[in-house]
Amino acid sequence: METIKEIKTLELANQRIDGRKANELRPMTVTRHFIKHASGSVLIEVGDTKVICTAMVEEKVPPFLKGQKKGWITAEYEMLPGSTNTRKSRDRNRGKIDGRTMEIQRLIGRSLRSIIDLNKLGERTLWIDCDVIQADGGTRTAAITGAFIALHDALTELLKKGKIKEMPITNFVAATSVGVYQGEAIVDLCYEEDSNAEVDMNMVMTASGDIIEIQGTGEERPFNKEELHKMMALGEANIKKIIAFQKETLLEGVNNE
Amino acid sequence: METIKEIKTLELANQRIDGRKANELRPMTVTRHFIKHASGSVLIEVGDTKVICTAMVEEKVPPFLKGQKKGWITAEYEMLPGSTNTRKSRDRNRGKIDGRTMEIQRLIGRSLRSIIDLNKLGERTLWIDCDVIQADGGTRTAAITGAFIALHDALTELLKKGKIKEMPITNFVAATSVGVYQGEAIVDLCYEEDSNAEVDMNMVMTASGDIIEIQGTGEERPFNKEELHKMMALGEANIKKIIAFQKETLLEGVNNE
Amino acid sequence: METIKEIKTLELANQRIDGRKANELRPMTVTRHFIKHASGSVLIEVGDTKVICTAMVEEKVPPFLKGQKKGWITAEYEMLPGSTNTRKSRDRNRGKIDGRTMEIQRLIGRSLRSIIDLNKLGERTLWIDCDVIQADGGTRTAAITGAFIALHDALTELLKKGKIKEMPITNFVAATSVGVYQGEAIVDLCYEEDSNAEVDMNMVMTASGDIIEIQGTGEERPFNKEELHKMMALGEANIKKIIAFQKETLLEGVNNE
Amino acid sequence: METIKEIKTLELANQRIDGRKANELRPMTVTRHFIKHASGSVLIEVGDTKVICTAMVEEKVPPFLKGQKKGWITAEYEMLPGSTNTRKSRDRNRGKIDGRTMEIQRLIGRSLRSIIDLNKLGERTLWIDCDVIQADGGTRTAAITGAFIALHDALTELLKKGKIKEMPITNFVAATSVGVYQGEAIVDLCYEEDSNAEVDMNMVMTASGDIIEIQGTGEERPFNKEELHKMMALGEANIKKIIAFQKETLLEGVNNE
Amino acid sequence: METIKEIKTLELANQRIDGRKANELRPMTVTRHFIKHASGSVLIEVGDTKVICTAMVEEKVPPFLKGQKKGWITAEYEMLPGSTNTRKSRDRNRGKIDGRTMEIQRLIGRSLRSIIDLNKLGERTLWIDCDVIQADGGTRTAAITGAFIALHDALTELLKKGKIKEMPITNFVAATSVGVYQGEAIVDLCYEEDSNAEVDMNMVMTASGDIIEIQGTGEERPFNKEELHKMMALGEANIKKIIAFQKETLLEGVNNE
Amino acid sequence: METIKEIKTLELANQRIDGRKANELRPMTVTRHFIKHASGSVLIEVGDTKVICTAMVEEKVPPFLKGQKKGWITAEYEMLPGSTNTRKSRDRNRGKIDGRTMEIQRLIGRSLRSIIDLNKLGERTLWIDCDVIQADGGTRTAAITGAFIALHDALTELLKKGKIKEMPITNFVAATSVGVYQGEAIVDLCYEEDSNAEVDMNMVMTASGDIIEIQGTGEERPFNKEELHKMMALGEANIKKIIAFQKETLLEGVNNE
Repeated sequence: METIKEIKTLELANQRIDGRKANELRPMTVTRHFIKHASGSVLIEVGDTKVICTAMVEEKVPPFLKGQKKGWITAEYEMLPGSTNTRKSRDRNRGKIDGRTMEIQRLIGRSLRSIIDLNKLGERTLWIDCDVIQADGGTRTAAITGAFIALHDALTELLKKGKIKEMPITNFVAATSVGVYQGEAIVDLCYEEDSNAEVDMNMVMTASGDIIEIQGTGEERPFNKEELHKMMALGEANIKKIIAFQKETLLEGVNNE
Repeated sequence: METIKEIKTLELANQRIDGRKANELRPMTVTRHFIKHASGSVLIEVGDTKVICTAMVEEKVPPFLKGQKKGWITAEYEMLPGSTNTRKSRDRNRGKIDGRTMEIQRLIGRSLRSIIDLNKLGERTLWIDCDVIQADGGTRTAAITGAFIALHDALTELLKKGKIKEMPITNFVAATSVGVYQGEAIVDLCYEEDSNAEVDMNMVMTASGDIIEIQGTGEERPFNKEELHKMMALGEANIKKIIAFQKETLLEGVNNE
Repeated sequence: METIKEIKTLELANQRIDGRKANELRPMTVTRHFIKHASGSVLIEVGDTKVICTAMVEEKVPPFLKGQKKGWITAEYEMLPGSTNTRKSRDRNRGKIDGRTMEIQRLIGRSLRSIIDLNKLGERTLWIDCDVIQADGGTRTAAITGAFIALHDALTELLKKGKIKEMPITNFVAATSVGVYQGEAIVDLCYEEDSNAEVDMNMVMTASGDIIEIQGTGEERPFNKEELHKMMALGEANIKKIIAFQKETLLEGVNNE
Repeated sequence: METIKEIKTLELANQRIDGRKANELRPMTVTRHFIKHASGSVLIEVGDTKVICTAMVEEKVPPFLKGQKKGWITAEYEMLPGSTNTRKSRDRNRGKIDGRTMEIQRLIGRSLRSIIDLNKLGERTLWIDCDVIQADGGTRTAAITGAFIALHDALTELLKKGKIKEMPITNFVAATSVGVYQGEAIVDLCYEEDSNAEVDMNMVMTASGDIIEIQGTGEERPFNKEELHKMMALGEANIKKIIAFQKETLLEGVNNE
Repeated sequence: METIKEIKTLELANQRIDGRKANELRPMTVTRHFIKHASGSVLIEVGDTKVICTAMVEEKVPPFLKGQKKGWITAEYEMLPGSTNTRKSRDRNRGKIDGRTMEIQRLIGRSLRSIIDLNKLGERTLWIDCDVIQADGGTRTAAITGAFIALHDALTELLKKGKIKEMPITNFVAATSVGVYQGEAIVDLCYEEDSNAEVDMNMVMTASGDIIEIQGTGEERPFNKEELHKMMALGEANIKKIIAFQKETLLEGVNNE
Repeated sequence: METIKEIKTLELANQRIDGRKANELRPMTVTRHFIKHASGSVLIEVGDTKVICTAMVEEKVPPFLKGQKKGWITAEYEMLPGSTNTRKSRDRNRGKIDGRTMEIQRLIGRSLRSIIDLNKLGERTLWIDCDVIQADGGTRTAAITGAFIALHDALTELLKKGKIKEMPITNFVAATSVGVYQGEAIVDLCYEEDSNAEVDMNMVMTASGDIIEIQGTGEERPFNKEELHKMMALGEANIKKIIAFQKETLLEGVNNE
């Protein structure tokens, strides 16, 4: 890979299917400036999950925002056919986007919009594309964490070019999954854990521990408030670590340039 | 309307946009046996929100379940063009289902499957259709609450006909929305409240207060754990009331027959 | 139901599958102002056939009429999945509208446009939506009869708001089905009759007995002119009764307000 | 063109836009065996309207007929982009079939099925394709008239090959348009007449003058029964002439072989 | 056919499946002014392959060319359902265009654009439609050869009407197929030859023997340079003959008018 | 990147837009085993063009091959939205695959099938997916070159597992682009060269210099045979180098395992 890419790996603890402890994240790597055409682009790897996140600027807004002097952020998510164990057939061949994909890309879009002051963007759209090239659980949360970096880089470019006056980012945002697996709360589930979890929850939070999105599902059975609290504690603690890692990554970017 | 329909209204307290208190549900009405062709069918009214929920039986399962001797429950949701203030154009004309619709029908399906023992269903599918004829906030939670009754009636019919041996329902399920509006936690938001809420959360719970689904979104800003707990308390207390109402409704059904 | 809704039932005679005579209509009920968001909205019940008809105003015309200072009326028709004996799958899932649906909505649109002076509408579109919630034969003719009331109410609102100067309605319009069943001409066929009729014909007429649309099909065998005349006589006589009922319904509306 | 094609032109009278009398058909030409791959194929020309009609056999039936030991006839209709004054864009590009096309192909299918004993067809489908290469009014009625010949030729081939025992045709069928134009009833409208007619009606009849389909529309204004009768008389008289022409055409075919 | 159509047949030599020699074209016929509505229209017959080619003018350009003062040529290709041995189902029914069709219509468009000075066209689009009514191999090359005549006629009309100042055609263009069949290079393959050829190549050339498009495929096995050269020689010699035929055809057109 | 990946770079000469000589390829890198779920997977980089190629096995064949005891190879190609300068919107959103994409994936499929003995594959399909993550000209030829390696790895796995008896590969295959740019023949065009080339040709060849596919287009003007020969010579010489590189790459694979 070219030398302009900064690579950073988050070091963590141990013991589960893959030898991790209940409260332990998988190794995380972020490769910035991964694709040369996009204003911001990142390859994020969370264990064996790998997602390319790009942020591109379009100098117009969707019809419903025209003339309101504010911008928009929209996200699209897709899994490459080879990213999963059994080949995933392309949505374009069926002529419709599958429900899960829809749900995920709406989540990514909402999460990023919630930490951006759209008035400071001007009448332009930031397109976020998250393409999963290898999937092993937690693709949507990896996408949010990585897309934030890509978005940050694209906005920095807009700022440097003088297209925007102020940085519109109001907060850091990152995400992880939590769940209940064999009765125990765990964080950052890999695919095998995710498929067998009793409860599955995705958390999107800010640096200060506030909640942007929380989506919990009793896959196998309803869950109680105690389980909810345990999962939330795990999520909060680990999202803090992830945001620390994002900050470090962006800082190195600054030093490198 | 025909005399075979049992109508029941839940009495509640007062003071908000529409004169309600923060912890007060809107009046709820359930009209059973609303459509003659469906095994189970309900018109549920929650304030000005009106949804027709039907449950119909198909004697086969989707391909991925074939030969596994278990059943399936699938849900579809749609808003009639006249149900909203500005006419909602039909999905069929664009040739694709919009993202919000997808998200909602997947939520309804998961919620109902979580309280059904699919092994007791046999190889058949229960189709749940939730068609919103008038929308004023909370259509997805009204749909879940109403669909449970329709599903119950359809399963009762299967039981009477001897097609299933035992009732596959393992729990009651109902749903409501909660949110933070002008800094205060409120329950069962009408459309105007929903459009201006800072935080929006949907809760699906069982009679015993366990969680089936929780989906919270910081629409305007992130929210903190205290707000989450207040909303959860409101949700839990009111879902209990709604389930009590469901029970009463089903009981009258028994007396009527 | 709310008190603002006027309900009117047309009284009729007896003897067929359902005890009616050959020349006898099924009981007809019209509930006006059924949906609060639409300018005009009606629940029409013809025997067990139930259709929600709404009329909504859009302040623009389709491209082919732009700049011609006249309006347009367009109609859409759909059956809810639970409206039929066997669940009807949604058109949106197949990504195309089925042929019968197309045929019906084009008929509704043409019928209503023929009794409206489009020049008096101004450059706006009236969207007519006819959603069948329960089907038992004659859904398209019930839709036309009900949609006329909804259209009337929407135009009355435009008139009151001063958006149009004059009422653009030039005539009343109503519809019914006629057919030949076991060799005898009958009117207003229910589903069972319709499925077994030798000849099936839909008639759309004005108050003065003039024809707006006539569509006759020899389902089982060709039919002769004598049969045509018998069916036409039945249709004409009964459409007169239906229009009388429409007038009475609209009159009460006036008294109520 | 190859010598195996029999060409026959129907001679007729004079005085209208194109010099015809009110009761006068346009010249009609049928070229049989126009396309070599199809079992039956015809180029029918009615004035400047030209339609290629083919009939092809598929040795299976649609799912809803499987196992019933009867056949099916299905029709498709399409206009080539160059067939109309302003280029008609292809339906495939919009991914949906336009409403008028649907309506027409359903009419063609019903008309042909009504004169065929489907039990004598065996479990096979006859595909009728009507492709308009040049349009000048009356394309749907020309299609029915021509498709009957193509269907006849395809069935004759099945009979010769011993795939069917008896001819399943129970009657001749032909069609023409009638209308009211400047107050006068006329037959077989060309495009210019059709665009300006007050009333437009399509008639499909048998040799004995019985009705298979009748579809009348008051385009500009409602029409009365007297107008209906005049149009019907014109239609009946001329369809008799067309069927005589069909018989002559098929007879020559017999002599030629 | 009407007398205004000029018909011209190219005489050729003998010995193959159909008695031709390796270097022998099939008989070619061009009927100009085949469809009255199109500015240019041609029925081209190459042996049993028959294609209707029309050229129609639209007074606007696609979005990507707006304001550039130049025109565009776009082509569409389709096979009628009855054109092939086994009925070809319509693309519109599957809601997508098949890959082969796409490939062919892109080839036709590129070929024609390459011999037109788009700057001399003005801001307008020429729509070329090639509809195969009977297929027996070589439909794409017949389409190019025929479409050139239709395009020429449409441009001549624009010139006569004074809409363009100069003829934008810079060169003649024609096409044929070549291939290797049982080890021997042959020209203008019929369907049976094409299905069994080891190598299949389409050539599009100008009058001066320059290449516009060359597309060669080793269907059964790779081919060597010697085979390529033999095929190219066959293609070049025969495209010269075809262009001579085009010139003669257009000349007669001039004399006729 | 993980240590199991073998990386190999082809060293080459200099002088063009990017400093290369006319006959010089861009640096080429192949990373094998790039995606863990696919049987074969490769990241191929040709200059700034980067394509992920995966090969996955499905244990069934398309309907048209059922029961013929032979296999199939099918290819899909797509560009990620961020791969191009201006964001490329996803095909799935328009519900149809664009023409260029179709053309390319058909080319990839044909090229690979031509060097495989499908009878030795058994009744299974090999799915080849080529996803462009960064585009700078020559994506289709890079895809073919890379997909061959992925296919080879997938077939090797089938062989090791004993699912096939013999290697079905009959030949090496690789591809490159050639063109005429400012009057000179050059090889392996980058995007800027490709956009301005007068002639553009893609060549797919075997190790022995035989032709699998040749597709040449006169983008700006027709080209003559001399230009064709120069381009072919460039293509042949360089494809030999690329195949040498493929062999070396696969050899290292063998040593590594």
